[in-house]
Amino acid sequence: MTVLEKFQNGDKRALSKIISFIENRQDGYRELLGKLYSKCGHAIRIGVTGPPGAGKSTLVNGLLHQFLKANKKVGVIAVDPSSPFTGGALLGDRVRMNEFPLDGDIYFRSMATRGASGGLTAATNNVLVAMDAFGFDVTIVETVGVGQVELDIIDACDTVVVTLVPESGDAVQAMKAGLMEIADVFAVNKADRPNSDRIVTDLRSALEFKAHDEHTWMIPVIPTVAIEKKNIEELFEKILEHIAFIKANGNFETHRQLQIEKKIIAILKNRFEKEIVDKLASQVDFAQTIEAIYKGNADPYAVAGDLYNEYSKDIGS
Amino acid sequence: MTVLEKFQNGDKRALSKIISFIENRQDGYRELLGKLYSKCGHAIRIGVTGPPGAGKSTLVNGLLHQFLKANKKVGVIAVDPSSPFTGGALLGDRVRMNEFPLDGDIYFRSMATRGASGGLTAATNNVLVAMDAFGFDVTIVETVGVGQVELDIIDACDTVVVTLVPESGDAVQAMKAGLMEIADVFAVNKADRPNSDRIVTDLRSALEFKAHDEHTWMIPVIPTVAIEKKNIEELFEKILEHIAFIKANGNFETHRQLQIEKKIIAILKNRFEKEIVDKLASQVDFAQTIEAIYKGNADPYAVAGDLYNEYSKDIGS
Repeated sequence: MTVLEKFQNGDKRALSKIISFIENRQDGYRELLGKLYSKCGHAIRIGVTGPPGAGKSTLVNGLLHQFLKANKKVGVIAVDPSSPFTGGALLGDRVRMNEFPLDGDIYFRSMATRGASGGLTAATNNVLVAMDAFGFDVTIVETVGVGQVELDIIDACDTVVVTLVPESGDAVQAMKAGLMEIADVFAVNKADRPNSDRIVTDLRSALEFKAHDEHTWMIPVIPTVAIEKKNIEELFEKILEHIAFIKANGNFETHRQLQIEKKIIAILKNRFEKEIVDKLASQVDFAQTIEAIYKGNADPYAVAGDLYNEYSKDIGS
Repeated sequence: MTVLEKFQNGDKRALSKIISFIENRQDGYRELLGKLYSKCGHAIRIGVTGPPGAGKSTLVNGLLHQFLKANKKVGVIAVDPSSPFTGGALLGDRVRMNEFPLDGDIYFRSMATRGASGGLTAATNNVLVAMDAFGFDVTIVETVGVGQVELDIIDACDTVVVTLVPESGDAVQAMKAGLMEIADVFAVNKADRPNSDRIVTDLRSALEFKAHDEHTWMIPVIPTVAIEKKNIEELFEKILEHIAFIKANGNFETHRQLQIEKKIIAILKNRFEKEIVDKLASQVDFAQTIEAIYKGNADPYAVAGDLYNEYSKDIGS
């Protein structure tokens, strides 16, 4: 049996191999991804984000138990594109994987590909496609922080859970940080700590102030204590409610189609870049042009303008 | 007098206006940048990075005093592209600015442009060009962490100072985090804390193990106590030594020219993206294509391939 056949038979080792094949962009990965695309569209995508130490992993583990109870197969991607100074993600993963049997309905994958120059978002999306094609009902992306890369990753999800802790500050800070625009559900974790009531109430009233009517999803704020599995079921219910809500109003489909459009543009851009780099490398006088710019005798915008006109006569015509 | 004339006369308010103009990509900003490019090339670029709380701002302030003593004009860019969860950068900036007179030879600029989708690196580079053209002798970019965006920003610098603290771990962790490849100078700050000797010795011996000969820059490790201005002069000297070293062996020029090449490619890519997005928007059947992909009846890679062939017949020919 080929790896792809094993993959189609539900062999998780084949899934791991196919994910690595795609991640490493081995010859033929585009064709493979093309095939996988035609088999996907079933799995829902949940994003879980929040500051380091908010208990995201414990929260996700709690959700996993809920999904298992509902007989759902779940694939989890843990992404840590953030500073190497933070470290420590991998050990955590190994610890948590012990909580679930390897032959069960849960699959974990870590993505800690630092320095993948803009490639992490694409890589994460490709892994989501592979997991979907494999037959998972649910895929969960867990990521630290909401820097640009994390925002792009989270953007691919249908439902985004933003996890805060009582120490995260107040609603004003959350608003300034743009969390109101990212979150579909807020989880205030470690809600047994002092002041947790305040941030919950605070967030709720800030959210009520936002313009809304009967067609607007009202972002719920759930106080949780993930380590004691407290309110995890409520969080789980709210996620399902949100998915049902966006499926009913058409936003699910619109958002997914927007993601496909972005994917196509990204593929086109990458191809353009590759060809332009080759072109420039083969152009004999390009080194002199660069030197002229370096010496202040030419201007990169003017040079780029000329190059663009030269290489892409058909574009824009 | 026009803003540009005031800028050329050394008016810092004109500099601020011009930076904002470029940051906001107002009409004509490309032409303006083109002009500024022809006036720049004088300022050296120093990058200072490290984990939150390592004392980077205090270290930079210490360096500023050294540069002032040497009669140098310095422009500082503080970049915080990292998670909004970390917060707090702006207040810190306002506090530190009070240390230097507004009419002196120091100029500060904060860049906290979250969500500028890939634009932060370009924006930072453009501000460096504006500062250089304004007549600064030295530009310093201070950034938290070394995620992908920070790496790209730091990449534009001639000399990179990586700031660690005794708690940052050991040389093995620094190596794993890729810090050995980024750093031209290590500063182990808060070196009055316990265990600081260990990380300093540890880093030094790890660096000696790296392959080197008389043409290799030996990365120095300087223990500092920025808050007491301890060893800041030594750090300052090492930075100047590194600049002199790369100017002598040609790496300064090679690296700068590589940055120009990257800039040109980035300009071309942006222009291509803009035109392709317009094209797709005007294509009547594109929405149907997207829907076909969404339903699993088409493959984004195949679709992108066809589009590419259609729109860019000249590219690659």
